[in-house]
Amino acid sequence: MEITRAETGARMSRSVVHNGVVYLAGTTGTGYESITTQTTEILSKVDELLKNAGSDKSKLLRAEIWLDDMRYFDEMNAVWDAWIPEGCAPARACGSAHLARAGVWVEIILTAAV
Amino acid sequence: MEITRAETGARMSRSVVHNGVVYLAGTTGTGYESITTQTTEILSKVDELLKNAGSDKSKLLRAEIWLDDMRYFDEMNAVWDAWIPEGCAPARACGSAHLARAGVWVEIILTAAV
Amino acid sequence: MEITRAETGARMSRSVVHNGVVYLAGTTGTGYESITTQTTEILSKVDELLKNAGSDKSKLLRAEIWLDDMRYFDEMNAVWDAWIPEGCAPARACGSAHLARAGVWVEIILTAAV
Repeated sequence: MEITRAETGARMSRSVVHNGVVYLAGTTGTGYESITTQTTEILSKVDELLKNAGSDKSKLLRAEIWLDDMRYFDEMNAVWDAWIPEGCAPARACGSAHLARAGVWVEIILTAAV
Repeated sequence: MEITRAETGARMSRSVVHNGVVYLAGTTGTGYESITTQTTEILSKVDELLKNAGSDKSKLLRAEIWLDDMRYFDEMNAVWDAWIPEGCAPARACGSAHLARAGVWVEIILTAAV
Repeated sequence: MEITRAETGARMSRSVVHNGVVYLAGTTGTGYESITTQTTEILSKVDELLKNAGSDKSKLLRAEIWLDDMRYFDEMNAVWDAWIPEGCAPARACGSAHLARAGVWVEIILTAAV
């Protein structure tokens, strides 16, 4: 079974496809205006990564969402809930962790069917 | 390859089956008596979710366990170890993170074969 | 589809293979000299686990890396980047969480194709 990677560097690939499943890297945003801005940016990147892997947001299997602070929960969820197509929500977990860079408030790790 | 979801809302599904694998959402409990109570409640919910997906706890592939505080490690493990069928333990990771709601001390994210 | 486990105890297996994918447990080290020492030890263990599962580091699908403190990011990455074969980097996420034991500064959770 073949492995197909996208945007591969020395440290990570942005997506890896194997056996009908695409594994996305933890995706973050750079917009510091608000949680809404940052989450919107992440999900826009994710749409592009899924499309390039031959998938889309109606085929999500699992989401792990990390927030720098649980106070961001409701604001992130408003963007998330609006993004998810009806009847297609993935298995999801959400917790709070310190993320890789200051100003990164949300990180989303997705797995989807191809 | 088909995707079969269970207990699907606008935000998440409780389980998603694809290509012989079931992905469960992060499962938490509501019992505030003790870590033992809460872990027992989670594993009882998990048994039901696995059953409904055509799987069971002898087919676990991976477990990620998040504790609100690492002091809960031994008490959670006592319940976990007793629940796992002999010879069937999954690949597991356990760390400490702030979880989605106050009073949620344990969250378990499972992947299993169907 | 068969499930093949390795180093299985009452709590966890070190690796679980199913349907062409190997799920490794969260792997940690015991060397307290430095982040470099501990990360090197982890990746050496991982090489052995992957080999025993019929895989290797050129077939990684996803990595989740947890650091006890984000100050360890650069030092861990230097070991990680050198370990990854050219063109084979997995989808990766990295965050900071309290890990299971004091002195455990790095935990790496890998998924690979077999």
